Amino acid sequence: MTDPTLIAFLDRLADSAGKAIMPHFRALNSVENKAATGFDPVTVADRASEEALRALINEHYPSHGIMGEEFGDENLDAENVWVLDPIDGTRAFISGLPVWGTLIGLTTGGKPSLGMMAQPFTGERFAGNGARAWYTGPEGDRVLKTRACDKLSDAVLFTTTPSLFKGSDREAYDRVENEVRLARYGCDCYAYCMVAAGFADAVIEVGLHAYDIVALIPVIEGAGGRVTSWDGGSAASGGRVVASGDARLHDQILETLNRAG
Amino acid sequence: MTDPTLIAFLDRLADSAGKAIMPHFRALNSVENKAATGFDPVTVADRASEEALRALINEHYPSHGIMGEEFGDENLDAENVWVLDPIDGTRAFISGLPVWGTLIGLTTGGKPSLGMMAQPFTGERFAGNGARAWYTGPEGDRVLKTRACDKLSDAVLFTTTPSLFKGSDREAYDRVENEVRLARYGCDCYAYCMVAAGFADAVIEVGLHAYDIVALIPVIEGAGGRVTSWDGGSAASGGRVVASGDARLHDQILETLNRAG
Repeated sequence: MTDPTLIAFLDRLADSAGKAIMPHFRALNSVENKAATGFDPVTVADRASEEALRALINEHYPSHGIMGEEFGDENLDAENVWVLDPIDGTRAFISGLPVWGTLIGLTTGGKPSLGMMAQPFTGERFAGNGARAWYTGPEGDRVLKTRACDKLSDAVLFTTTPSLFKGSDREAYDRVENEVRLARYGCDCYAYCMVAAGFADAVIEVGLHAYDIVALIPVIEGAGGRVTSWDGGSAASGGRVVASGDARLHDQILETLNRAG
Repeated sequence: MTDPTLIAFLDRLADSAGKAIMPHFRALNSVENKAATGFDPVTVADRASEEALRALINEHYPSHGIMGEEFGDENLDAENVWVLDPIDGTRAFISGLPVWGTLIGLTTGGKPSLGMMAQPFTGERFAGNGARAWYTGPEGDRVLKTRACDKLSDAVLFTTTPSLFKGSDREAYDRVENEVRLARYGCDCYAYCMVAAGFADAVIEVGLHAYDIVALIPVIEGAGGRVTSWDGGSAASGGRVVASGDARLHDQILETLNRAG
């Protein structure tokens, strides 16, 4: 049972992140380039938001650790470690689309124990603690519950873009995509939340960082789904990840990904 | 100069469509299959919305024609013809994502003269009459203006998914995608609105119907951008379409698409 104080604190963190981010959403000239080569945008909003989150955590839970996308690691040996991605979906953010989100996760003893995706433009929050998952938004509050889907040919699948899969990973991904009912691209954290809410069935990704996924694991698991690495192990450190709303579908996806080409 | 009564009527149409659609958004079990083969979903919401739009048009402008996705054509020889797609982005809609929209366009003498994309979940509307374009939404109202972008290497490009391009069209699209700063997939009508708003630079698509694009042409053109077919002609009948925020970029895209592979 999660400490109710921590659940309330999640909302407080999300409030604070949203306040830091929203003045910069759809405001021009606020985009920096993180890397000299390639295109890895990070905005003023990303930094302002992570600073706000870190300040609140340090104030209220000084013994907790923090792993963040923008400002590195603090005290990772702590029992409780917050794992933060202030703007997951920076490409959506800089294109003006409302399908990015603030990811706030907590690991306890190394395992994802609490998490939230907050979307301040739409006012939606998807949260979970591994046992339960819940939604608040403009349509009101409700419990999040994945939907049943016991075969690939019925599944709605998300991924960021197939071009991120290389070599045998691309062949493995394509084997799954070729069997599903519908594949949709480009929605980052929002895709996982749609699986938790029962509107889609699976997400397959590669190259994730821990801060891309830790917050989402307690949401999907709390809604009745599964999140693992492609080989069925823990997804908490990122890498190659599969999330599904139905354990039967999850097994089929893992089998299809790992089938010899 | 557009009749102000027509501009007000656009909002009335959007109100009515939103009212018909929203009870079905994120409601399960409301998805029908339009085609026996393949996956072309159409929802109860799609039909209810188009019926509401047609009833209002027939009541207020009985001499106008109507071309709609769901219920076919009425009186297409009229000087003014409404071109309707009650839910553009049905795949987003059935996946729970807020990046679908209701497209309401008007052609006058065969040319797109007025249009709106309305997104009732976020409360956003993007509208234009070819000379001006405007936005209303939760952030308040503003004028829509495309941004300057004079070369491909700076451009943010959208398309629904590269897998829709076949054969030489795919090669042509890939030539453009390989040169842009960022390509993003999967946002249908929302992508065109982000170009109109100056958050993205171009959209390239194939296989469009008139009802996918007519409403968006007066928005993008009113915001300072261009919309044409791949060969530089009118995009009003759909097919292979390019929309850009900057005429200089538009010329480069057309040149790159049409360059001998």
